[in-house]
Amino acid sequence: MMKCSIFDHRIDLKHTFTIANRSSDWRPNLSVRLEYEGIRGYGLAAPNPRYGETPESCRAALEAMCGQLEGDPRAYEPMIRKMLASHPGEYAAKAALDMAIMDLAGKLLGAPLYRMWGLDPAAMPPTSFTIGIDTPEKVAQRAAEARGFRVLKIKLGSGDDQAIIRAIRTVTDVPVRVDANEGWTDRETALREIEQLAKQGIELVEQPMPAAQVEDMIWLKARSPLPLIADEAFTAVGDLITIGEAYHGVNLKLMKCGGTLIARDAIAMARSLGLKIMLGCMVESALGIAAAAHLGPLADFPDLDGNLLISNDPYSAHPVSDGRIRLLDAPGLGVAPLN
Amino acid sequence: MMKCSIFDHRIDLKHTFTIANRSSDWRPNLSVRLEYEGIRGYGLAAPNPRYGETPESCRAALEAMCGQLEGDPRAYEPMIRKMLASHPGEYAAKAALDMAIMDLAGKLLGAPLYRMWGLDPAAMPPTSFTIGIDTPEKVAQRAAEARGFRVLKIKLGSGDDQAIIRAIRTVTDVPVRVDANEGWTDRETALREIEQLAKQGIELVEQPMPAAQVEDMIWLKARSPLPLIADEAFTAVGDLITIGEAYHGVNLKLMKCGGTLIARDAIAMARSLGLKIMLGCMVESALGIAAAAHLGPLADFPDLDGNLLISNDPYSAHPVSDGRIRLLDAPGLGVAPLN
Repeated sequence: MMKCSIFDHRIDLKHTFTIANRSSDWRPNLSVRLEYEGIRGYGLAAPNPRYGETPESCRAALEAMCGQLEGDPRAYEPMIRKMLASHPGEYAAKAALDMAIMDLAGKLLGAPLYRMWGLDPAAMPPTSFTIGIDTPEKVAQRAAEARGFRVLKIKLGSGDDQAIIRAIRTVTDVPVRVDANEGWTDRETALREIEQLAKQGIELVEQPMPAAQVEDMIWLKARSPLPLIADEAFTAVGDLITIGEAYHGVNLKLMKCGGTLIARDAIAMARSLGLKIMLGCMVESALGIAAAAHLGPLADFPDLDGNLLISNDPYSAHPVSDGRIRLLDAPGLGVAPLN
Repeated sequence: MMKCSIFDHRIDLKHTFTIANRSSDWRPNLSVRLEYEGIRGYGLAAPNPRYGETPESCRAALEAMCGQLEGDPRAYEPMIRKMLASHPGEYAAKAALDMAIMDLAGKLLGAPLYRMWGLDPAAMPPTSFTIGIDTPEKVAQRAAEARGFRVLKIKLGSGDDQAIIRAIRTVTDVPVRVDANEGWTDRETALREIEQLAKQGIELVEQPMPAAQVEDMIWLKARSPLPLIADEAFTAVGDLITIGEAYHGVNLKLMKCGGTLIARDAIAMARSLGLKIMLGCMVESALGIAAAAHLGPLADFPDLDGNLLISNDPYSAHPVSDGRIRLLDAPGLGVAPLN
């Protein structure tokens, strides 16, 4: 009764993208299409090599999990929970199926996802726009090109991070978020660097130290003048209790949580622990960004620019204006395949 | 733009109801009616004297919070969060407003609450039916009258609890849930009593020891042959981490959580901590029971019989058949005032 199709996409990047440990010109994405009562729902997977996910393992997981889907997607909650429990790992594949089920459920109900969950699209905070590692001149040029955005994000680890920030400050004074990607292993060094950053209009620092250094992070949290956000330290909802002690906030990504339903749970739990919410993404099609954007009004710091870095997106996007994603009033996720 | 009316109800009980520390023939309830764009939404408050809530304090809180409601209830999530933060305590009043907002949101969307949240009404587990403290003969008579129910619940503390259970077993062999209401202060005694109960088809034990005795509960949890459910130990979502160590499950009540939205958060968090979910109620009108019943498919142990003990309910009810609440396919909470 539920028909499932899986598509492979080669996602080309507008600019070669460098973070602390790798560069790339393209990324593999997969999308899944579910069909129920003549209605189609779509979801996106951006498999993450950090967790052993490959396009092949992702496709295999999608095929296995699709084969087990049953019931009416109007009752999306038990369908998604059962799907999540039906397969080990492969969170990108799970995120794709969660999205496709929510897209179907919304279309069957005639309501956008944000409406089903009672969120106010006008309350969407601005999203950050990420600038990869490059020479200070190139970074300044990219920052100038990103004029429409009200927040920038940069990845540290180039060797001369302060020069990069100074270069950005020559062209814009918007708040800048900094992702250290576990870059500092010594807590005293981390504190000194963060104190420097605090003088330059930096809004927050993501994952300053390796995720495993929990005691150092508790020490650093007590002293940091900037909010510290867990990224690599979050692997599952169960991590949130420790994160609540060692960080001020958490970066939640659908591809790591396994979709919108678990992300909503994680947001509720993180809030009850006093954590700020960053909502992140991979380099991924606008389909995945759309799903995350429906949760955007629940976030303090949306970081949902993954599709803006792509030159050949296979899906339509919710528009961005004044640096904010403007959710369209269409049922489900509100986007569609472009051909 | 949002019109608010508040009603007082004197809820008469079919039978005088006794638990460990008090008896009563009636209870005060309040209901609130919100009106937005010509649509009416209803919610119920059953103020709890244990938390210093009186009908007067509840009404005052409702009036204060109603005056601050603004915006479109379709965006129910920020409206409810803001309402919850707008006043200290008074969770019954908050529950009433949460319900009224969700009733409105569902009616505006044309969907029952269970549908908005993607739940399957066919997955509703049986609810328990509670028998108050009385002589063994009277208890057996009530148990015989409750033939339609697939689970019974009894309150311990009569002095001869084992005689009461034996009396029930003369008329029925359905599973029985036991609520000790903090009755045992010594952990060895508690363990012996629970071991006795385990031999008589008892399904679970609620709050065996005083909520403050956390270390004793951790000891008891490690040894108990029956699941132990926190009731008095739950006062807010933040308690769940400790409850996760000291109990197997938690009894969540809308009147204590402050409504359906927080209860849904609490369920998600409790699940991630490995806790079983009991969904409880006060002696309260079918309006409050309806709101909780929409979350019923998320519960392991619904305990939603509060309206069945009432002789003059001012609201209509979802029917019960084969011991399960059967949610009607009507928008919002699906019930209405009877006159």
